[in-house]
Amino acid sequence: MSDTVLVKSLHRVAVVGGTHGNEMSGVFLVKHWLKDSSHLVRDTFSAVPLLSNPKASEKGVRYYEKDLNRCFTLDILSAPDSPDDPYEVLRAKEINRMFGPRGSANAYDMILDLHNTTSNMGVCLIISRVQNAVELHVCHYIQTRLPYYIPRIYVYTKPGADLYSVDSVARCGIGFELGPQPQGVVRADILQKMKTVVEVTLDFIDHLNKGIEFPGFEIDVYQCADQVDFPRSPDGEISAVVHPSLQDKDFSLLHPGDPIFLGLDGQIIPYSGKKPLYPVFINEAAYHEKKIAFILAEKIQVSVPALKRQTHKISGDNLFSVLDKEGKDI
Amino acid sequence: MSDTVLVKSLHRVAVVGGTHGNEMSGVFLVKHWLKDSSHLVRDTFSAVPLLSNPKASEKGVRYYEKDLNRCFTLDILSAPDSPDDPYEVLRAKEINRMFGPRGSANAYDMILDLHNTTSNMGVCLIISRVQNAVELHVCHYIQTRLPYYIPRIYVYTKPGADLYSVDSVARCGIGFELGPQPQGVVRADILQKMKTVVEVTLDFIDHLNKGIEFPGFEIDVYQCADQVDFPRSPDGEISAVVHPSLQDKDFSLLHPGDPIFLGLDGQIIPYSGKKPLYPVFINEAAYHEKKIAFILAEKIQVSVPALKRQTHKISGDNLFSVLDKEGKDI
Repeated sequence: MSDTVLVKSLHRVAVVGGTHGNEMSGVFLVKHWLKDSSHLVRDTFSAVPLLSNPKASEKGVRYYEKDLNRCFTLDILSAPDSPDDPYEVLRAKEINRMFGPRGSANAYDMILDLHNTTSNMGVCLIISRVQNAVELHVCHYIQTRLPYYIPRIYVYTKPGADLYSVDSVARCGIGFELGPQPQGVVRADILQKMKTVVEVTLDFIDHLNKGIEFPGFEIDVYQCADQVDFPRSPDGEISAVVHPSLQDKDFSLLHPGDPIFLGLDGQIIPYSGKKPLYPVFINEAAYHEKKIAFILAEKIQVSVPALKRQTHKISGDNLFSVLDKEGKDI
Repeated sequence: MSDTVLVKSLHRVAVVGGTHGNEMSGVFLVKHWLKDSSHLVRDTFSAVPLLSNPKASEKGVRYYEKDLNRCFTLDILSAPDSPDDPYEVLRAKEINRMFGPRGSANAYDMILDLHNTTSNMGVCLIISRVQNAVELHVCHYIQTRLPYYIPRIYVYTKPGADLYSVDSVARCGIGFELGPQPQGVVRADILQKMKTVVEVTLDFIDHLNKGIEFPGFEIDVYQCADQVDFPRSPDGEISAVVHPSLQDKDFSLLHPGDPIFLGLDGQIIPYSGKKPLYPVFINEAAYHEKKIAFILAEKIQVSVPALKRQTHKISGDNLFSVLDKEGKDI
C-alpha cells in the first residue's frame, strides 16, 4: 500500500432520506432540499436529494411491503423483474439504475443515507465495511469538526457478508443514524444535528476535490459481532423487557453478568456472553420484528492512510487501502 | 349536593390495553395479565383484562382502519351494522356490548385504558369530564400514593362535547397516558410506572368497596382548551418543527410570545395566543395526521366532595357531584 491513497474527485453525490418512511429527520430534510437545494451546493459539486421510499414516507411507516434497506443485495438487484415483486424491490432496482449500477464504473461517487433510531445512539456513522479510505476519512472529519456530538462509527456487515443497504449502490456510502427519536416525530435537536453532519460531509468532499491532503490516522470503529433477541414465552411473545440499567446505554461496555432483561415478576436476566462487548441499537422499535433486542459490537482500531485527490491521470483509484492495527490489508 | 357522595360498590372493572396497538406498555401488560391475572385480584373484586384492538396490536400499528379510541360516540355505537364498517367500528360496538352498553344500568363500573405517548407527559391521568367524583377520587389517590410520579389530570372533552373513548362505555373511566415512549417500544421504567398506577387504582377501589370514607379535597386539572397545528407550506407539508425550548415541556406554562416553532432557516414562530396556557401532547407522533402539533390546556381547580360506599339501599348513586371553585355544580 502507498502512504497516501489517491482518489478521483467526487462529483456525483446523493443525499437520501425516507429509506424508512417513519424516520422523520431524513424525510423532513429531503423534502426541504427538493424545494430548496442551496444547502447542498458546494464549489466543486452539488449533491442530489432523493426521497428513497415515497410510498412508505407518505404512509408514515417504515416500509410498504418489504424493508427497502435490505433490498440492495446483488441477488435482488440482478434478478429479473417479476409482477409479484414487492414495491420496495422495484424501487431498489430503480435506485440502482439511477445511482449505480452497484459495483459498476458508472456508479455514483457517494450516497449519504439519513436514518433515525429509537435507541440512544447519538450521532452514529454507519459504514458497511472497514476498508474504504474515503468513508473513514469522512467519519474522521466529522469527529474532528463536531467533537461535541461524540460521533461513533458502526460497521454493519460481518466480513464476507453481502451488502444490502441503499448506500452500497455508490462507490462510497455512509448511513447517518441519529437517535433517540420516536418513529413519526421530528425533534428539532436531532434535525439540527442531522443537517449539520450532512453539511460537514459535503464540506469534506469539497475540500478533497480542491486538492487538500488529509493525513492518515488511527480510529476506533464498532464492528457488528452478534445480536440478542428478547426472552420469549413458548407462544413467541416477549416475556421480559430491556433492563433499565441497559436501556439508553448504547456504546457503553456490557460485561458478562450485567443485567440485560427484566421480567414483570422482577426476574433479572444477565448477559451470558464470554467477553465484554458494546451494545448498540438497544430497544430499537423496528428491530422487534427482526427479533433483535440489541446488537453487540466489538471495538476495533484501524489505521487509515492519508487521502488526496489524484492530480495526474491514473488508470483507477483504490478506495480499499485501510490497514488493521497490525498493519495488514483488511 | 350532600357533603359526601354515596356510591355503590365497584365490582365490575376492566383494564384495557392495546386500544392503540403500538402503545406498548398496555399491550405488554394486558398480554401478561391474560396469562396471569393475579395482580388484578383484590378482596372485593377482580379486574378483567382486555386487549381492545387485537388486529392493530398484532400489526404493531395505532389502528387497522380507524382510530378505535374515537369510535365510542353515541352516533357510532347506535348506528346499525353495515358490511362496510371499518374493523374498529365493529370492535367498538362489540366492546360496548361487553362492557356497556354506554350509559345503561348494565354498564361496567370502571374501565381503565392504558396508553403511551411520544410526548413528555410523564404520568398523566385522563378523564372525559370533571364531574365524576369517583374518577377524581381515583386521581387524587394516585397523586397521594405516588407523589414522585407527579401525576397530572387532563380533561379531554370540552363542555357539551360527546365522549368518544373506550372508557366512556363504563360508568367511570380513566385513561393512563404515560410518556415519553416511542411507538413500538416497551421501556422498563414506563412499564413499571404503568403497572404501579393500575395496581394503586385497584387498591383504591378495594378500599372504597370495603367502606373506607375518602375526605373531600380541592384539586387542579388541566382542561383541554385549544389545539395548534404545525406551520405548513402551500402544499400542506410541515414547514417548521416544534421549537427546542417547547419540546418536552408538557405542562409548563406557555406565555404569549414564547417560541413554539422553528424553521430550517432559523425562523422562530412565537405563540400568538392572548393568555398563558399549558401545552400538552407536544409533538405526539400520532397527532400529526390529526394536524395537532400540541394541545393547549387551562388549569382549573375543582372541589371534590367526600366519597363513601353506600351502606343502605338507595335508588341509585350520583357520581356527578363535583363543584367548581365557586361552589356550583358543573
